[in-house]
Amino acid sequence: MAPRQKMDINQQTATDMKAARSRTSISVQTVRNYLYGGQEVWDLHERLEKILVQESLFDKQHRDFLGRTDQFIRAAAIINRLDELRRMHNWSEEEYTTASTLLSETISTTLHDRAFQPVFLGQGSPALMESYWDLVHEKGIQGCYLQTELGHGTNVASLETTSTYIPETQEFEINSPSLTSTKWWVGALGKSATHGAVQAKLILPDGKDMGPHLFLVQLRSLEDHKPLRGITVGDIGPKASGGMAAQDQGFARFDHVRVPRTNMFSKFAEVTTEGSYIQPPHAKLSYGGMMYIRATMIPGAGWTIAKAATVAIRYTTVRRQGEPDAKGLERQVLTYPSTYYRLLPILSRAFVFIELGRYTIKALTQMQQRLASRDTSLLPEMHALLCGLKVFVTTHGIIDIETARRSMGGHGYSAFAGLGRLYIEYLPSATFEGDNFVLDGQVVRAATKLCKAVLSSALVVSKLPLPSAYLRLLSTTGEAPPQVTASTWHDVQSVVLLLEWRAALMVKNFTQTPANGDVDASVNQRLAKAVTEAFIAAQVGEMINNLANLPSEDAKAVGCLYKLYLLTCAESALVDLLSVGLIRHTGAGDPTQDLRSAVKALCIEVLPNAIGLTDAFGFSDWSLDSALGVFDGRVYEALWQRVQMEPMNKDEVTPAYAPYIRPLLQRGQAAAQQKMKLDSKL
Amino acid sequence: MAPRQKMDINQQTATDMKAARSRTSISVQTVRNYLYGGQEVWDLHERLEKILVQESLFDKQHRDFLGRTDQFIRAAAIINRLDELRRMHNWSEEEYTTASTLLSETISTTLHDRAFQPVFLGQGSPALMESYWDLVHEKGIQGCYLQTELGHGTNVASLETTSTYIPETQEFEINSPSLTSTKWWVGALGKSATHGAVQAKLILPDGKDMGPHLFLVQLRSLEDHKPLRGITVGDIGPKASGGMAAQDQGFARFDHVRVPRTNMFSKFAEVTTEGSYIQPPHAKLSYGGMMYIRATMIPGAGWTIAKAATVAIRYTTVRRQGEPDAKGLERQVLTYPSTYYRLLPILSRAFVFIELGRYTIKALTQMQQRLASRDTSLLPEMHALLCGLKVFVTTHGIIDIETARRSMGGHGYSAFAGLGRLYIEYLPSATFEGDNFVLDGQVVRAATKLCKAVLSSALVVSKLPLPSAYLRLLSTTGEAPPQVTASTWHDVQSVVLLLEWRAALMVKNFTQTPANGDVDASVNQRLAKAVTEAFIAAQVGEMINNLANLPSEDAKAVGCLYKLYLLTCAESALVDLLSVGLIRHTGAGDPTQDLRSAVKALCIEVLPNAIGLTDAFGFSDWSLDSALGVFDGRVYEALWQRVQMEPMNKDEVTPAYAPYIRPLLQRGQAAAQQKMKLDSKL
Repeated sequence: MAPRQKMDINQQTATDMKAARSRTSISVQTVRNYLYGGQEVWDLHERLEKILVQESLFDKQHRDFLGRTDQFIRAAAIINRLDELRRMHNWSEEEYTTASTLLSETISTTLHDRAFQPVFLGQGSPALMESYWDLVHEKGIQGCYLQTELGHGTNVASLETTSTYIPETQEFEINSPSLTSTKWWVGALGKSATHGAVQAKLILPDGKDMGPHLFLVQLRSLEDHKPLRGITVGDIGPKASGGMAAQDQGFARFDHVRVPRTNMFSKFAEVTTEGSYIQPPHAKLSYGGMMYIRATMIPGAGWTIAKAATVAIRYTTVRRQGEPDAKGLERQVLTYPSTYYRLLPILSRAFVFIELGRYTIKALTQMQQRLASRDTSLLPEMHALLCGLKVFVTTHGIIDIETARRSMGGHGYSAFAGLGRLYIEYLPSATFEGDNFVLDGQVVRAATKLCKAVLSSALVVSKLPLPSAYLRLLSTTGEAPPQVTASTWHDVQSVVLLLEWRAALMVKNFTQTPANGDVDASVNQRLAKAVTEAFIAAQVGEMINNLANLPSEDAKAVGCLYKLYLLTCAESALVDLLSVGLIRHTGAGDPTQDLRSAVKALCIEVLPNAIGLTDAFGFSDWSLDSALGVFDGRVYEALWQRVQMEPMNKDEVTPAYAPYIRPLLQRGQAAAQQKMKLDSKL
Repeated sequence: MAPRQKMDINQQTATDMKAARSRTSISVQTVRNYLYGGQEVWDLHERLEKILVQESLFDKQHRDFLGRTDQFIRAAAIINRLDELRRMHNWSEEEYTTASTLLSETISTTLHDRAFQPVFLGQGSPALMESYWDLVHEKGIQGCYLQTELGHGTNVASLETTSTYIPETQEFEINSPSLTSTKWWVGALGKSATHGAVQAKLILPDGKDMGPHLFLVQLRSLEDHKPLRGITVGDIGPKASGGMAAQDQGFARFDHVRVPRTNMFSKFAEVTTEGSYIQPPHAKLSYGGMMYIRATMIPGAGWTIAKAATVAIRYTTVRRQGEPDAKGLERQVLTYPSTYYRLLPILSRAFVFIELGRYTIKALTQMQQRLASRDTSLLPEMHALLCGLKVFVTTHGIIDIETARRSMGGHGYSAFAGLGRLYIEYLPSATFEGDNFVLDGQVVRAATKLCKAVLSSALVVSKLPLPSAYLRLLSTTGEAPPQVTASTWHDVQSVVLLLEWRAALMVKNFTQTPANGDVDASVNQRLAKAVTEAFIAAQVGEMINNLANLPSEDAKAVGCLYKLYLLTCAESALVDLLSVGLIRHTGAGDPTQDLRSAVKALCIEVLPNAIGLTDAFGFSDWSLDSALGVFDGRVYEALWQRVQMEPMNKDEVTPAYAPYIRPLLQRGQAAAQQKMKLDSKL
């Protein structure tokens, strides 16, 4: 073998990144403004990040070296500093929310802002608001939301904590009657919160159980932060793989703790001084909060996936492996089909979920305006849609982060790659705000109900709510399913229609199964996915239409991504498409080949813009906190620099040497000498 | 709502677990001996675990509270103690290996035992063995294996580290010519190892580059453990989500470090004193080591999945959620179709992989015996098979652990559930010992080659090596593909045959694609999966036949599991089965329904034995280290006890209060007062 031409692989990384940027056909700025929803939103983002980056406390590079307690203390310091900055710069609500999101840190006040505060706004009586709102809003108290118990999660009806009304003193007595009634998993409860909104079964003086209601309970003293009498409270310990280490999820037990009658969150249901219960006008009026949280999870998933896509696409652009070419250059890892086939669909989902979030939050706002005037007609459909979307985006979010991490090979397993942290912090989203496998059932229930109405002509298809528009296809007067040909995959509307047909036929088949019929064990998961994908596909069709507002090169590049989303969605739906007969094996080769080839062709079309499209997310190196995702591509230098910070490297000889390693080696050396002696004697 | 009957949910857990045990129809002991490969293997296991459990140092319950440095120091202490025990009890190789596996701890000597030592045995010259073997074997020195560099992993040919022969002094000069040539990811290198087997390009005195060879290099002094001159060495920092925290993966750079000529591992290729190169007789003779590691990964995956299955099946047996029945009991989570459909196939894979491991290691031993007599005929087929199996079992292992964790809902995200740690430590197996996506390509290459030979009749099908027996179906004189009916799914041999046909047809289609033809981006992944699954299916068919040796109830229960494996494998292969036309949509309903219903029916058949079958793995509570997987089912008590150990709970008031939380609250209280004053003025 002749000596190979010298090649500085490290220098080459920067060259590769520059070349990739020069290849892009889009205006990064235009696409960025599109993603952010306007230049002014980006400007706000940039202005706030400039402030945050200057704070040495907000530096992320040393997080990975901290134990859990130190991570918690750092988070408390960050919360305090963020509050100082808010006051110093006189931030608006929007500015404060943007800044906390930008921080990308697990901090316990998120629960205060997004769970505790909304309970006051949504369900606080005027009297309660009068006494507490300013304190809540100014964080003069810190709140948490106590729902889940050791024995029960999703099934709120089975919670065991009681709140018994005592008419004599006009108080509620909060009590934990058993070990399993211990409140558990409550964010910010462990070591931070002073107050909590406690879900407890309301027991009337006559012993009647009115089911779960919310009560404000002070947990810790405002003088010295000690837990109040009758309250046992603490942290529930570390999470899987060090997830959310900085968060103090807590437990709490109440031993006959009294709170005034006015501490019930009683905007919709209340207990009179005598102990009579006044019915809520509509039980579902309080659903808005949970639905809003689920809706924000859609763009949340989009931006999370965007981070993973950015890191992995940048790294695989500069990482080279394989047979060297004439110039001595190995192949860029991203150009291998097995790599781009994994990463570009992830990129497409990031774009789709970000846009989809905008649509959903708008639709939800409309619904909430109607709710405010006590019109609940949009509620069931919106509830089912949000269940389906929540399941869909979180399931993908988790897989996509891990797929991106794994595409980076060995270095992807380094904490410095940044995706391990992203994954483990995002992971519980499959379980919180409703376990995904439970929510699937709700999607199916709603779809079946509407489907039956359509099939029995009880519902005219023109009256179908938008998210269930796919059911129009089941109308007796409607069209027949389309014929799939190679050209189907090149026409957006055909693909959308096919995905709608797939959902319609699957739901129809299921609806028509006799009550004792053969329903398999994964049917809810498959149906919920089909229904949700039909809805999203139609939305993506809209998104593609709306791209007309962008300059043509940008519209083309983003349009390609959206098409890639649709095609990979269809590819993952192939079993269904074949099962319901929308695609058939006719004997002329593999009927899935056209689709698979179209996916590959689209990937190849997206590839030159991959770096430009990830740049459009506008992530700074500070924000990504990844040695492999650095903007300039100099990944090896970045890894090397990070490694020098490792605390174990401060000692030339590890403290484990004297007590443990030396004795081990010395015993081994003595035993070897002994053997050699024996050998020489033989 | 009438007050519900009081039910002690905590007491109920133990009742549920007892009831589940009484329902099982198997002899746990018989199935356990089957899994372990005999009563005497189990006895060894039990005898050794009794010794290990007594060591307070080996207690696992406090691991989750330790920072990384402390985890490393604990691991060093464990290594030292394990060595003391080995000498104290005069353990054989088998006993020592069993004990280290039983420990279930990430310890750096694993690399010494499984990578460093085998290099000596496989490639050490007699002279090197003479000087070093006793020291190596007695751990008088601690070794590591330096292959991966910062810039290169899988592609060994591109490694940059050089070893230049200097005839004047009869030495090799090891050198790291660039940043990217820094050795990286090397287990035990960071802070432990004294010596390393270094992969470096051998450069002859005439400048000729002979490609990568192995050299023994001392890294640290045996006097004081300080790095030797010319060697920069350290730890590469934390891993994703705190994975393998106790392991000191390290980096090393060599600045013209000299070692004697005899330090080359030169059993197969050597450099003479003058600097001439003597060719290896067969380059592949040294492949045995890597293949053995891959083979052990098969049962390794089985036992890892077994742990996850045990924890999740135990927890979902005692966890109850949903509408209470007449007795006030909610439904056991495991009895929900969406739960057992996820968990029982995992259980089936644990059994299959454990058995499959036994077969593979046996086949490999046969091959190695032939290799010893320089017969390499079995090597290519065995290499491809092991690539495919490695990909298959690790890919499943990772998904299965996470599926099991997620089936446990919220508590599954607690570190005390134990599966977070299991997952993150197992995760890199998708990447090490050959990146799964790279290995897929090797499987396809081998399959295509054999397929072409069969199609061109260059190879008589009776001569097909066993792992590729499925290709016999392509013989021109062979049978036609079978008709699939509902009864197909009730006949083991029919399912096996179908999975073989699927692989055969897919490989054939691919082989016949013209050189410039339309190959999609995921084809390697799909083909490798189909080929590997065909092989495993045939093996599982054999396993079912061999069950005749067990008592009938045990054979029936294990047989059910094996059938479940085959059916869920077919279910996951549905796209392929439909694409190649083995299953067709005939217009008479969903052609996949029979299979899906058969899967559900089998799950229901397995269900009453689920706890018995997991008990048969013989895991102790110490070994599982999971509050949710405790043998007696008292999961809530176990969680409660663990939480009391959380270090953050030692302080009634967190140290974060005075510096950070108090100022935050006080600022908020002052601002709220200010507002109230303003309000009262208005």
